[in-house]
Amino acid sequence: MGHRSLLLLLLAFLSPGAASPVSPSLRATSSLPWSTSFRARPTITLKYSIRYIQQKVDHFGFNINRTFKQRYLIADNYWKEDGGSILFYTGNEGDIIWFCNNTGFMWDIAEEMKAMLVFAEHRYYGESLPFGADSFSDSRHLNFLTTEQALADFAKLIKYLKRTIPGARNQPVIALGGSYGGMLAAWFRMKYPHLVVGALASSAPIWQFNDLVPCDIFMKIVTTDFSKSGPNCSESIRRSWDAINRLAKKGPGLRWLSEALHLCTPLTKSQDVQHLKNWISETWVNLAMVDYPYESNFLQPLPAWPVKVVCQYLKYFNVPDTVMLQNIFQALNVYYNYSGQLKCLNVSETATSSLGVLGWSYQACTEMVMPTCSDGVDDMFEPHSWNMKEYSDDCFKQWGVRPRPSWIPTMYGGKNISSHTNIIFSNGDLDPWSGGGVTKDITDTLLAIVIPNGAHHLDLRASNALDPVSVQLTRSLEVKYMKQWISDFYVRLKKMN
Amino acid sequence: MGHRSLLLLLLAFLSPGAASPVSPSLRATSSLPWSTSFRARPTITLKYSIRYIQQKVDHFGFNINRTFKQRYLIADNYWKEDGGSILFYTGNEGDIIWFCNNTGFMWDIAEEMKAMLVFAEHRYYGESLPFGADSFSDSRHLNFLTTEQALADFAKLIKYLKRTIPGARNQPVIALGGSYGGMLAAWFRMKYPHLVVGALASSAPIWQFNDLVPCDIFMKIVTTDFSKSGPNCSESIRRSWDAINRLAKKGPGLRWLSEALHLCTPLTKSQDVQHLKNWISETWVNLAMVDYPYESNFLQPLPAWPVKVVCQYLKYFNVPDTVMLQNIFQALNVYYNYSGQLKCLNVSETATSSLGVLGWSYQACTEMVMPTCSDGVDDMFEPHSWNMKEYSDDCFKQWGVRPRPSWIPTMYGGKNISSHTNIIFSNGDLDPWSGGGVTKDITDTLLAIVIPNGAHHLDLRASNALDPVSVQLTRSLEVKYMKQWISDFYVRLKKMN
Repeated sequence: MGHRSLLLLLLAFLSPGAASPVSPSLRATSSLPWSTSFRARPTITLKYSIRYIQQKVDHFGFNINRTFKQRYLIADNYWKEDGGSILFYTGNEGDIIWFCNNTGFMWDIAEEMKAMLVFAEHRYYGESLPFGADSFSDSRHLNFLTTEQALADFAKLIKYLKRTIPGARNQPVIALGGSYGGMLAAWFRMKYPHLVVGALASSAPIWQFNDLVPCDIFMKIVTTDFSKSGPNCSESIRRSWDAINRLAKKGPGLRWLSEALHLCTPLTKSQDVQHLKNWISETWVNLAMVDYPYESNFLQPLPAWPVKVVCQYLKYFNVPDTVMLQNIFQALNVYYNYSGQLKCLNVSETATSSLGVLGWSYQACTEMVMPTCSDGVDDMFEPHSWNMKEYSDDCFKQWGVRPRPSWIPTMYGGKNISSHTNIIFSNGDLDPWSGGGVTKDITDTLLAIVIPNGAHHLDLRASNALDPVSVQLTRSLEVKYMKQWISDFYVRLKKMN
Repeated sequence: MGHRSLLLLLLAFLSPGAASPVSPSLRATSSLPWSTSFRARPTITLKYSIRYIQQKVDHFGFNINRTFKQRYLIADNYWKEDGGSILFYTGNEGDIIWFCNNTGFMWDIAEEMKAMLVFAEHRYYGESLPFGADSFSDSRHLNFLTTEQALADFAKLIKYLKRTIPGARNQPVIALGGSYGGMLAAWFRMKYPHLVVGALASSAPIWQFNDLVPCDIFMKIVTTDFSKSGPNCSESIRRSWDAINRLAKKGPGLRWLSEALHLCTPLTKSQDVQHLKNWISETWVNLAMVDYPYESNFLQPLPAWPVKVVCQYLKYFNVPDTVMLQNIFQALNVYYNYSGQLKCLNVSETATSSLGVLGWSYQACTEMVMPTCSDGVDDMFEPHSWNMKEYSDDCFKQWGVRPRPSWIPTMYGGKNISSHTNIIFSNGDLDPWSGGGVTKDITDTLLAIVIPNGAHHLDLRASNALDPVSVQLTRSLEVKYMKQWISDFYVRLKKMN
């Protein structure tokens, strides 16, 4: 699980075996109680324009003069020139339309904040490909996929918008982002405080680098979520690994496992078993991240409180291995097949294809090295130590580059960020990434909000009747602070004129 | 004068004609009153070690893994582990030993501040050449000569020193620099506030970009210096250009001019006349910059208050052209031949060779675009408008790159820097670069000090019996603020432990 994306756990170095479906007997999930009751969350009417800006491929060198089209979305339905603001989403590792659709909070507060909404796509994701189809072809083409270049894109875009949109020039801009996008929002405020008056960094694990936090913190939080969501749930998962190992060793074990788990591609060799376990681990991790209090469709269509639903199948750990694995299947099926449409489970996918797999894998092999580990004792996963050398070698094999794990703390300050101002760090306590996040106020303008029963950037999602009070309160606090930044901005502006 | 270095005015696109001395009749300067009384300023005993650190050629990309040796000087004679500090000179466009020798202020205060002194050489200058002899061969090799890369070198060096020098880890670092190095010191504090508790940016024209200040401000200040330094002085210079033009048009005019000015290489074509005038202009500019109150040897060996000395030869403007030019020669001779050793004047040089001509020319053609212009009315120079297109075309011809004149304000905030803290901007009012500097307090931690009768970063020079009170006061203010930053640091450190 080395190349862990914040939103998408990449199955490291998956062998791209041919996908021949083998599970005609898949009973699908028609027996699952919620599969028929699935309905889409009421859609917010998102009216935005899709636009493009020419960006330098290399902001930090002058030898390459090539440009590319960065996509961004803009919505000004509620924008007011007089006393308004610009809410700027610092796009992360995926298609910006998908992030736009999943950041209902900005839409919900647009009117109240007289805000223009801007969603900027991150280079090398979605349609914003510096070298088109060749963007991921080798390390030379990928050389411009860094956080610094992405932030510079944002800076140029903001300058451009202010220059070209009448009335925008003297308006305060606030950076908002979730997950990796939350890191970018925070870092943007740190590095370009002249362009944004503040940042809302939701679920941004800016400290999940080097040894700033223990590498096992992430998996511990996942485990806690499962422990709290049903009796014996994490213990069942902890024991499932050995059950898989034992089954895999038996003669027809791989075949049995493939069928019991309704895998699209049957396991054929022992290496496949490790992939299977990685895939299952990542499924639990994803579930912890999206353990939202209502039906949702972020990484996958899911019921409300999906970890609780999953845990209903994992109540018993003292069961034969075959029963354990059938239970595991039912649990996985909650995540992968809530809609009941799926014929088989695909171990090479864990989430929406709106996320950019290749781009993140490269970022994880260069700047975004976020150590994780597990011990199987304080967490429910197989023991897995953090081995920087192995990680680096794998990166070199895959991309021809070696990670620089201490660069991000050197660049963005690590834990020593107290001289910055106007950043809100929000984290849900269910979210495994909260372990690397800022969960205590640093100063009176570097604020931390912890959302009890909140999963990954729950606060950035559209408000929902089933929202816990905690997230409602969080959002109103966030609005309060952002309004303060805006009013401070206008006070300063008035003084200057 | 497009490629104006802060410390070295480059004669743009000088034709590299063969240098055949032509002035056997040069009377040298033995008749000048100070030529025999010249003596070197008392030398401070500078005991430092020369060290090297391996730096990535490209901090912002992972495709090129090449490293190079960055040179730095370190002096710990007065350093104390207990309550000490690290004063870090952010090297600019030249040999770091030369900057070290000309930054006596740091040596003077080392004991009082229990400070370790570090002088970091800027990449592509001195011995710190990323590609050795090939470093300036083309735009591909020059691609890593940017302020961002230089600041990243400084960041890595500070982290390295803290990691490897016992006792340095928990010490406050202060960035100091003058001129371009002063900009780097300020920008370093802005971008890496986690690594330095503050910055002293002396004579740092961080606003001499785009249209942040009028382009004619620089030449106006030069003119004022000359006006104040002697009757009719600036008026004589203003009239000298036409005198040169008229003389150059006559039959034997070029020859006469070459001999009257004792040029090493005679003027042969009309183009040479423009070079001559550029060279003379740059001489006046340099004189304004180094108009120190005592004998000094920065860009050249010079008497005290050299502009006053120069102006002694420029009292009369209603004189025949030939007399005017003979006076101009005497004035130039003050700058170029104070030691009386020189046989002829070389129009392709204006200052010490410790400065990096090639490197700066490239920087001026990429990020460091600092518009200047003159009108001949409010200043004493020939009218010269700022033409960005022409400038860009020249850069493209010379280096194969085009400047990005708005990048520095985008990156470093332009005039909107009030959210930063702990930077002292000092400027001498005689210094033409003060026009692009910060000369008014921005907040109570972004402080401006203007030094009456101060030339270019006078405050960073060693104390001298002839220092005006203004610079003595400036230095004690600077020490006071720096001590405050240091004590704030230790208070925070104590709280954390």
